[in-house]
Amino acid sequence: MARGGTATARYEDDSENAWNCGSWFEYLLIVILSTILLVGVLVLTLFWIMFYRGGFAWSENPTLQFNLHPTLMIAGFITFTGFSILLYRLCRCLKHIYVKLAHMFFHACAIPCVVLGFLSVFDSHNLSDPPKINFYSLHSWLGFVTMGLFVLQFVVGFFSFLVLLCCENHTYACRATMVPIHASFGLVNFMLAIATCITGLIEKEKALNAEKSISSNNAEMEHYIINSLGITLVAIGIIVSFAVRRSNAPATAKVYVTERL
Amino acid sequence: MARGGTATARYEDDSENAWNCGSWFEYLLIVILSTILLVGVLVLTLFWIMFYRGGFAWSENPTLQFNLHPTLMIAGFITFTGFSILLYRLCRCLKHIYVKLAHMFFHACAIPCVVLGFLSVFDSHNLSDPPKINFYSLHSWLGFVTMGLFVLQFVVGFFSFLVLLCCENHTYACRATMVPIHASFGLVNFMLAIATCITGLIEKEKALNAEKSISSNNAEMEHYIINSLGITLVAIGIIVSFAVRRSNAPATAKVYVTERL
Repeated sequence: MARGGTATARYEDDSENAWNCGSWFEYLLIVILSTILLVGVLVLTLFWIMFYRGGFAWSENPTLQFNLHPTLMIAGFITFTGFSILLYRLCRCLKHIYVKLAHMFFHACAIPCVVLGFLSVFDSHNLSDPPKINFYSLHSWLGFVTMGLFVLQFVVGFFSFLVLLCCENHTYACRATMVPIHASFGLVNFMLAIATCITGLIEKEKALNAEKSISSNNAEMEHYIINSLGITLVAIGIIVSFAVRRSNAPATAKVYVTERL
Repeated sequence: MARGGTATARYEDDSENAWNCGSWFEYLLIVILSTILLVGVLVLTLFWIMFYRGGFAWSENPTLQFNLHPTLMIAGFITFTGFSILLYRLCRCLKHIYVKLAHMFFHACAIPCVVLGFLSVFDSHNLSDPPKINFYSLHSWLGFVTMGLFVLQFVVGFFSFLVLLCCENHTYACRATMVPIHASFGLVNFMLAIATCITGLIEKEKALNAEKSISSNNAEMEHYIINSLGITLVAIGIIVSFAVRRSNAPATAKVYVTERL
């Protein structure tokens, strides 16, 4: 594979690394399963919020405004980001620049979700009576780290892999160095987002238990919905890290560290 | 690199992939930082249990028996497993079979910790008055998945990479296929263990808050210790996944998918 402007060779072009039937089956399984999980987690959250938490509102009702927080954060940090990571690894036939742009587009879609989700929890804390302290719980600390890393990854990714393309040949070495770092921290960021969501779910459930004096049938059902949400998030973490790490090249094949720039 | 019995070539033997000063600095930084974090998280847990939770006991005191659970689980699933993963990737100069055996030894050390930690929480649930339900919370569900995957990984790893060595040449292809799967699921298992620990910490803290009617200065301090434990666990997750995924080969070098069998 030549360096620089002609670095467009891919796995598929290399007959030595050609996929067999099993690889395609695994590939399709991952695509279908991850789509179901990534959409499913959002649908399950919406179901939980609409049927058990009374739906949405903005600052006129701080309790309902809080409900925007889990929904938007799961939409932004899990569904959009998850699709963005997966499509980058799984779209192997498209022209590479389109995959890059789609990767950026999905991440860009996550930004308004995260910003609104962040504002809604701030508002609902400050407007509730008495106001709740911000950045006290472990969930909020983890969320802060996750958001910081997300912004850093977005800015660094945007400049390294899109802006630096303006002089493609001269920036090759720099971009090649950035690829594994961006990929590693991207996956770390996604895992961090999942851990933050799970801590948030538990904190919410414990807060609900403290409010309810008697355990009703409805509360029991809600407990299982929240647990299922947690398990779905873990399943997403497993399938995404598996899809990203697993290369379908045969064991004896040589792969390029940089994979695709 | 030849297949089969002579497959002992390593990065270091290859002058093209020789490490420069920066790579060695990064390597040392990861070794030192991860040692501090992996030992530190256990020391912090012991400090928390001894000074804030009243130390340890067996079934004569279910409340104190519970304290064995976080300590042993963090020792087994985080400290021992973390060192085991890291040493496999970082011991690059030792003969490979010794690294394998050390990898297995550290995992084997985790087993009694996990078993005792599991029994202690069961006992403390059943012996408390009134008895608490087992396998109800999200933490317990996640823990169950983590333990199941741990056992699976240990058994599969033991047979694939040690027992199958008996006829080294004939099992090469099989072992080569298993390496990326074992490595992926090993990392997933470690991340799962971290997520489980964090959910456990939050559940414990919420349960403590429910017990205490007034918030004392001591409770405030304990809150920050628990949050610091959570953040340390996240830092371990980041550094271990970084150490495992990051290969120090230059960007243009070719690496072998199978790395080291």
